[in-house]
Amino acid sequence: MNSKIDRLKKAFPEEAAYFAVFDSVNMAYFTGFNGAAALLIPKEGDSTLYVASTNFEQAKHEVKGVHIELLKRSEHLLEVIAQTAKPTAHSKLAVDNLSIERYHALAKAVGDEKRLTAQNNTIRSIRAVKTPDEVALIRKACKLADLGIKVACEVIQPGVSELEVAAEVEYAMRKAGSCGTAFDTIVASGKNSAFPHGTCISRVIEDSDLVVVDLGATVSCYRSDITRTITAGKPSEKQLKNFQAVKTAQDSAFQAIAPQVPAKKVDSVAREAIFQAGFDQYFVHNLGHGVGLEVHETPVLSPVSTDILQQGNVVTLEPGIYICGFGGVRIEDTVLVTENGAEKLTTAPYRLNAR
Amino acid sequence: MNSKIDRLKKAFPEEAAYFAVFDSVNMAYFTGFNGAAALLIPKEGDSTLYVASTNFEQAKHEVKGVHIELLKRSEHLLEVIAQTAKPTAHSKLAVDNLSIERYHALAKAVGDEKRLTAQNNTIRSIRAVKTPDEVALIRKACKLADLGIKVACEVIQPGVSELEVAAEVEYAMRKAGSCGTAFDTIVASGKNSAFPHGTCISRVIEDSDLVVVDLGATVSCYRSDITRTITAGKPSEKQLKNFQAVKTAQDSAFQAIAPQVPAKKVDSVAREAIFQAGFDQYFVHNLGHGVGLEVHETPVLSPVSTDILQQGNVVTLEPGIYICGFGGVRIEDTVLVTENGAEKLTTAPYRLNAR
Repeated sequence: MNSKIDRLKKAFPEEAAYFAVFDSVNMAYFTGFNGAAALLIPKEGDSTLYVASTNFEQAKHEVKGVHIELLKRSEHLLEVIAQTAKPTAHSKLAVDNLSIERYHALAKAVGDEKRLTAQNNTIRSIRAVKTPDEVALIRKACKLADLGIKVACEVIQPGVSELEVAAEVEYAMRKAGSCGTAFDTIVASGKNSAFPHGTCISRVIEDSDLVVVDLGATVSCYRSDITRTITAGKPSEKQLKNFQAVKTAQDSAFQAIAPQVPAKKVDSVAREAIFQAGFDQYFVHNLGHGVGLEVHETPVLSPVSTDILQQGNVVTLEPGIYICGFGGVRIEDTVLVTENGAEKLTTAPYRLNAR
Repeated sequence: MNSKIDRLKKAFPEEAAYFAVFDSVNMAYFTGFNGAAALLIPKEGDSTLYVASTNFEQAKHEVKGVHIELLKRSEHLLEVIAQTAKPTAHSKLAVDNLSIERYHALAKAVGDEKRLTAQNNTIRSIRAVKTPDEVALIRKACKLADLGIKVACEVIQPGVSELEVAAEVEYAMRKAGSCGTAFDTIVASGKNSAFPHGTCISRVIEDSDLVVVDLGATVSCYRSDITRTITAGKPSEKQLKNFQAVKTAQDSAFQAIAPQVPAKKVDSVAREAIFQAGFDQYFVHNLGHGVGLEVHETPVLSPVSTDILQQGNVVTLEPGIYICGFGGVRIEDTVLVTENGAEKLTTAPYRLNAR
């Protein structure tokens, strides 16, 4: 009935009889609805979505394929779940994500912590391989992100503030159908651009600045993630050299992607290209990460990742060079791992100068 | 040196010698920086902020008053913290918020789960009482939210979509200095308005609609939260009656606020007013919640809350009436608990029709 719940049932933790999902993003994944209190999935049979009165009518209206139960104010959610699942040491209750205090309260409610098994990674692994429906939504979010970059290129010029660029970019994406930003938009200019996560302050862009624009859109809760680095004026030779090194690294990484390739191998290809260009100490972060309902998902593309790429993964490739006092260059795309290689879902042009 | 870390030291869990902070919002609270991996606060002496290479230069540039340590890729954060804190059963390591899997890994690293104590609520209690600096930032965010409502009133008319209203509101707040929305903007019109958390879809507003507009701005990571309900055309008598009932409930609740008043008492005052107006089964959620670095904080204003209001709390008051098929009315302000009563930080006019 519900293909995503079926995927979990196929990957059900061996020792578990029920899976209690508390994380609102995981609930959105399985049901399309993020306003519930918990989703209880049995190894076999129908699942139950527990919803407080606030969102009960909306859940009944929007959610199909699971039993929807009103959680009354007098009922304690963890007790209700413990009573329904009745786990034992050999037939455990798997849980995804809840605070440690609540985890301990759930352990008390089921009588023994050994009757619980923490299995958020099971759900994260399932979510890492996108269904065609999910890819279609991410693709739409990527088109909106491309629009955001187009507008950034139109707006960036000396005298405009970082904040104004962010305002125009977000407005354009919103008007075109984005349900909000995928994460806090980064417009980091001049010396701020040397900080990978520099936030938009009211700094005014100058002629000689590098401007790192990192943004994303959201469509039906699915996100996109793109970065372009832009100069307000004519790029300097050094800026162009750094840009070219980052572009070459991203190209090499993109060529290296295919199913069954270790994620750390793709990271190492990009890192080697940056090293060859003489910038290795300036590439201070991972190559990339999965994107979907959240902006940071599995798999991780880093030197220490144990993930293996699979068809249906959606990942970012975002090499960068950050030189304190000089500025930063980052280029990032959202990329789909296909049957034989990879496809870029973000497709904004690569060019250093805005016009 | 750091007044917020000093507040934690005064409220330090008795059995703990160190407090490991993993939650990025909690780290932002104590240091003003949300890009670190962990913050380790000893009961006495200097605190250490562990930062990976990605954000190390930015942390050195922005964070004062704590020791900043580079977390190398070869180092495992939980091991480093376990080795530094060396907790025992009588001198524990307090922790705030991390996944259950990581909590178990930390327990293994320190040798015994009994050497850990889950204390996120300790930090939440401290964060519930805002310092004057925090109130000043929330006040700014509230002024931006007032602007958002002003723009919504200008834009809402028959033929305009919910999404367009959200776009204009967010754009105006951003241009005026908001660092992004405080949460996903709600513009819920017509039958959607009967869902308290109805999201912006592309529904086109009609003449007879109730339109619930729930929005917030962000200033230096501090948030605001306001709701007004607006009609595109001339309100009907029934719409006016519902509006008046909600307004009366909010007025009564506001009058009931003072330090030492139980939060559930304030909720009950609003609930009683809604009951007197004959709408009690339609007020399906809590009266309100704390606001600060997050949009939902302590204290909670609900019928089952055990919180007691204190001077310096910032809370929302948001009674509502939701009638399926007819529509919803909600009025919400962000309110500061003062020495003798309360002050509204959001001050947009209350009126049902947009013009």
